[in-house]
Amino acid sequence: MSNLKLGIVGCGIAARRFHRPALAELNDKFEIAGVTNRSREKAVSFAESIDGAKIFDSYEKMLESDLMDAIDLAVPIKLNPKFIEMALDHGLNVICEKPIAPDVEEGKRVVELSRKSDKVVYIAENFRHLDRAGKAKKLIDQGEIAQPRFVSRQVWPGMTRKNEFAQTSWRKNPDHAGGFLSDGGVHHIAELRLIVGDIGSVFGFTGKISDLPGKYDSLEMGLNFENGVLGSYKVSYGMEAEDSFKIHGDEGTLRVKSDSISLSSGTGTKEIQVNDNDGFKEEFEDFYEAIRGNKENDLGKPMEALKDLAAIEAGIASAETGRREELSSFIGF
Amino acid sequence: MSNLKLGIVGCGIAARRFHRPALAELNDKFEIAGVTNRSREKAVSFAESIDGAKIFDSYEKMLESDLMDAIDLAVPIKLNPKFIEMALDHGLNVICEKPIAPDVEEGKRVVELSRKSDKVVYIAENFRHLDRAGKAKKLIDQGEIAQPRFVSRQVWPGMTRKNEFAQTSWRKNPDHAGGFLSDGGVHHIAELRLIVGDIGSVFGFTGKISDLPGKYDSLEMGLNFENGVLGSYKVSYGMEAEDSFKIHGDEGTLRVKSDSISLSSGTGTKEIQVNDNDGFKEEFEDFYEAIRGNKENDLGKPMEALKDLAAIEAGIASAETGRREELSSFIGF
Repeated sequence: MSNLKLGIVGCGIAARRFHRPALAELNDKFEIAGVTNRSREKAVSFAESIDGAKIFDSYEKMLESDLMDAIDLAVPIKLNPKFIEMALDHGLNVICEKPIAPDVEEGKRVVELSRKSDKVVYIAENFRHLDRAGKAKKLIDQGEIAQPRFVSRQVWPGMTRKNEFAQTSWRKNPDHAGGFLSDGGVHHIAELRLIVGDIGSVFGFTGKISDLPGKYDSLEMGLNFENGVLGSYKVSYGMEAEDSFKIHGDEGTLRVKSDSISLSSGTGTKEIQVNDNDGFKEEFEDFYEAIRGNKENDLGKPMEALKDLAAIEAGIASAETGRREELSSFIGF
Repeated sequence: MSNLKLGIVGCGIAARRFHRPALAELNDKFEIAGVTNRSREKAVSFAESIDGAKIFDSYEKMLESDLMDAIDLAVPIKLNPKFIEMALDHGLNVICEKPIAPDVEEGKRVVELSRKSDKVVYIAENFRHLDRAGKAKKLIDQGEIAQPRFVSRQVWPGMTRKNEFAQTSWRKNPDHAGGFLSDGGVHHIAELRLIVGDIGSVFGFTGKISDLPGKYDSLEMGLNFENGVLGSYKVSYGMEAEDSFKIHGDEGTLRVKSDSISLSSGTGTKEIQVNDNDGFKEEFEDFYEAIRGNKENDLGKPMEALKDLAAIEAGIASAETGRREELSSFIGF
């Protein structure tokens, strides 16, 4: 079976640091056939090491070239919905870097576009492909902690003004809900939802403790999962990096770390090794298999990405209105 | 200076296991001059080892005897407000086991009674006298973690149906707000408030996961402290015992444990030893000093105890109404 011809749109951090290395490992599945970027210069530099990649002056020209089987979008968040629509209008499969959209309203449009199309719309959420997430879910499904009851997720990603992400112009003046809170937060929610299940309702408090761009850099959320698990999600982009992720069950506790999972129960503590993968290779492989019809698009489904975004947006909304937000009514379908 | 003559009212778990041993160490300050209990038998057995303790058939008779300088109330929670009032009506100082009252409405009455009296009304909250709490507060005040930003408090007290507390008849059919949630919860909130400061607003989710008495046995709360610190408080009486208490600041993290405090910062981790005291001796000493006029009643002040209770009651109310609760308006003064 021949490779899929992929057109990369946007040559920023995500494309350079995450997509390009993953695709280099998957050259039996994808051929980077085209590259485009708002400034042509960056596209030229990006394409230098890619054999046969054609440089396009615009996304429109790439689409009209009729040379692609699929589009890889790594553009500023606010462009995602429109650019996904354009790919579908040209009958192309599309993988788009998370979050699905700048806000839930726009995200719903992407879900609807996807439902009306027979092409694959894949929202690339690499955290759904982390080895630790899959293994944590499996341990719970096997009953290792019996009934899960509580989740504690604390993330300080260790962002600073000098960080490469914080320097992105569209991140400096964010159009997307909550700035870093949603941009980074969808990752954490995606992993939580994969392991624990869908979130029913949330509460939130916001904070601003650093001079990072955006209205808020901190969020304290209460989570009520549909299966009755209760949880807290605290995130701050203004703190020194630190991470803690625990799932408490009736008969044990899982501590999920980057390279291992500790399973504590009455009989002691067991360390389960996990690969410290970043999930990008796996998400492109999954996209490929979905296009080939070998599997459902369950991990990149727009509705999943919408639920991730909705949890964060609802947490921020709750902080502003003082009301608990039910995610189903917040999403509205 | 002569001892204070103390009348103990109620000879249940708190009097036997907590107050009696503390008072035995403070026999230069207190003399247990009288004992009363609903069933006389229990009072007799309690007083057996106490030289000169007179047994009274009722609280009223103890008050009318005119033999006491102060009253120690260790009675079912719902009796606290009325019994405090009776002590004050007889011109007696009174120390009363937490929580201040079965609910905030009743608690406000105690605050008002106390304000109108020149006697000491002391709500005995032993967690405000834990060595670890005082030392954690001091470390923060000294700037060891710079500005505190987040708190994570998780407590599974390890309650079971067979537990002595769970067997108390008035705990089996609780009249007090949230049953165990407020009975135990005021301790945790008291310690949090001592270390971090007053709580501005809360939200909550409740849960019930065990067959313990009461409508709920679990609570997940979000805390917004008046100084801007954000926090989560998760408690469950239905889980196997486990405890975690962390305060995160701009330049370090405190982990508060029963016998030590870990201070982690850029320069490594330092263990600060603390006495694993239960705080009962200290609270009676403090009560004594307040009566003698040697210090303010700051740690046993009814308003402090009311704020502890209000946080829990507001968390439960928030879970039921779906609204964030502002503590000042929840308390109403």
